[in-house]
Amino acid sequence: MLLDCGEGAQRQLSRYGLRTLKISHVFITHLHGDHYFGLPGLVTSMALFGRSEPLTIVGPPALSSIMQVLITESDAHLPFEVRYVATQCNETAVVVETEQFSVTSIPLKHRIPCTGFIIKEKCPERRLNVDACTRYQVPVGEYDEIKWGKDYPSSQFGLVKNEILTTAGHINRNYAYITDTIFDKDYLLPHIKGVDLLYHEATFLQEREQRAHETFHSTALQAAITAQAAGVKQLMIGHFSARYNDAIPLVEEARSIFPNTLEAIEGVTISIGDPSAQVGVG
Amino acid sequence: MLLDCGEGAQRQLSRYGLRTLKISHVFITHLHGDHYFGLPGLVTSMALFGRSEPLTIVGPPALSSIMQVLITESDAHLPFEVRYVATQCNETAVVVETEQFSVTSIPLKHRIPCTGFIIKEKCPERRLNVDACTRYQVPVGEYDEIKWGKDYPSSQFGLVKNEILTTAGHINRNYAYITDTIFDKDYLLPHIKGVDLLYHEATFLQEREQRAHETFHSTALQAAITAQAAGVKQLMIGHFSARYNDAIPLVEEARSIFPNTLEAIEGVTISIGDPSAQVGVG
Repeated sequence: MLLDCGEGAQRQLSRYGLRTLKISHVFITHLHGDHYFGLPGLVTSMALFGRSEPLTIVGPPALSSIMQVLITESDAHLPFEVRYVATQCNETAVVVETEQFSVTSIPLKHRIPCTGFIIKEKCPERRLNVDACTRYQVPVGEYDEIKWGKDYPSSQFGLVKNEILTTAGHINRNYAYITDTIFDKDYLLPHIKGVDLLYHEATFLQEREQRAHETFHSTALQAAITAQAAGVKQLMIGHFSARYNDAIPLVEEARSIFPNTLEAIEGVTISIGDPSAQVGVG
Repeated sequence: MLLDCGEGAQRQLSRYGLRTLKISHVFITHLHGDHYFGLPGLVTSMALFGRSEPLTIVGPPALSSIMQVLITESDAHLPFEVRYVATQCNETAVVVETEQFSVTSIPLKHRIPCTGFIIKEKCPERRLNVDACTRYQVPVGEYDEIKWGKDYPSSQFGLVKNEILTTAGHINRNYAYITDTIFDKDYLLPHIKGVDLLYHEATFLQEREQRAHETFHSTALQAAITAQAAGVKQLMIGHFSARYNDAIPLVEEARSIFPNTLEAIEGVTISIGDPSAQVGVG
């Protein structure tokens, strides 16, 4: 899943050894150029590389017609299907649902229609205890539901509690991607409460709060206040104004309120749900 | 003047220290992404940098509506005027005329509507001999025409020949930018005859002539044949297929027919009209 796609994204993906053919979904928050001007190039390059798997593109309603005009004018014949999903700017909506993830769009308050995205893992959270299942003669066809936490009603043994048939397994994680937005903690709170990782834009330092407000952006301090109020486990900030050559003051400002704050650094892999780990440069 | 504007062009301009505010005209040959997907980002960045000078964009008719949709959807308010000039794909046309240059578009034969561009310098080619002008009492108001080669009809001295009033000065140069096109030397010849520098695409080696023909591209050898037939002073080739990691075989192939062939190398400045000079990496 690729979240936003600024100009040059395909080149950067390649630089970090990330194969574009592995991208199944692209999510575009809004139609400011720094968030999607790399999408036409990415999609047409996928065609050159012979992609055949479908690609889902989620974004503002106008995105599909923009992409279709560009593709038509270049007389490109994409050898794969592109599925467009339009985001709503007046209500939250589940925009993607796969076996492993669900993704919800949340309207944000920016200068033009814009949504954030919440990605929720939805794997079974219990691991089968196969010995116990065999002992209680649980049919294999029941295994899936048992991994999801169901007890098993046995005619011979009575109701077999799930804790007997399973052990603790995977813990589902979630990630909130919130950019671009004016500071509005109370509005965001119910959507991002307790997420494992919150990416929140932090365009300015707090000393430029007025400018942030006028341009419908947030400050590093405001991102941290939101993270703290929502009780998220980890905060990552980015989208820094070009006026800042150095991200350290922005990160320090956020950490003054919310210590577990990371800077979004190009090429760095973050392992969600493992706050101690900030692993590897791609 | 910027000829074509692929994705990432603004970043590369910046890397080579070229100020985008100095660009007055952008020419787009055709609507394949590698020739214009960098234009929306370039234009919106010009707005961020506070440009106020007008910008002329020359390209296929659909380009203006594409740009206008992107700008409208991003709610950008460009603080400068953009003037669109549509190229014709059925006849040559003078698309830009400034005090120093005229630019002509030439329809090319590619998979989609496409034009090349010929840039002709049009400065006065004679330098005033002010002493002589004073001696023959030439009014200052006549100087401009005399620099363009006119004799001066004096009531006192009779017709004063231009060679007396001027010395040899600047020699106007011209540059032909021909991409993307199938090989068609006879068609191109009258347009590019004797130009100081011909840029001609060379997507493939001659061993892939068939593939070049099918995709409406040229080989390095074909570019050189065209250069030779047209008697151009210098040839520059580029637009090499991604299959070639090394440009040397392509340049060598062209040089077998036309020795004065250069490779188009990113960041390298070519001084037109000075075949010995290939000056400076920006």
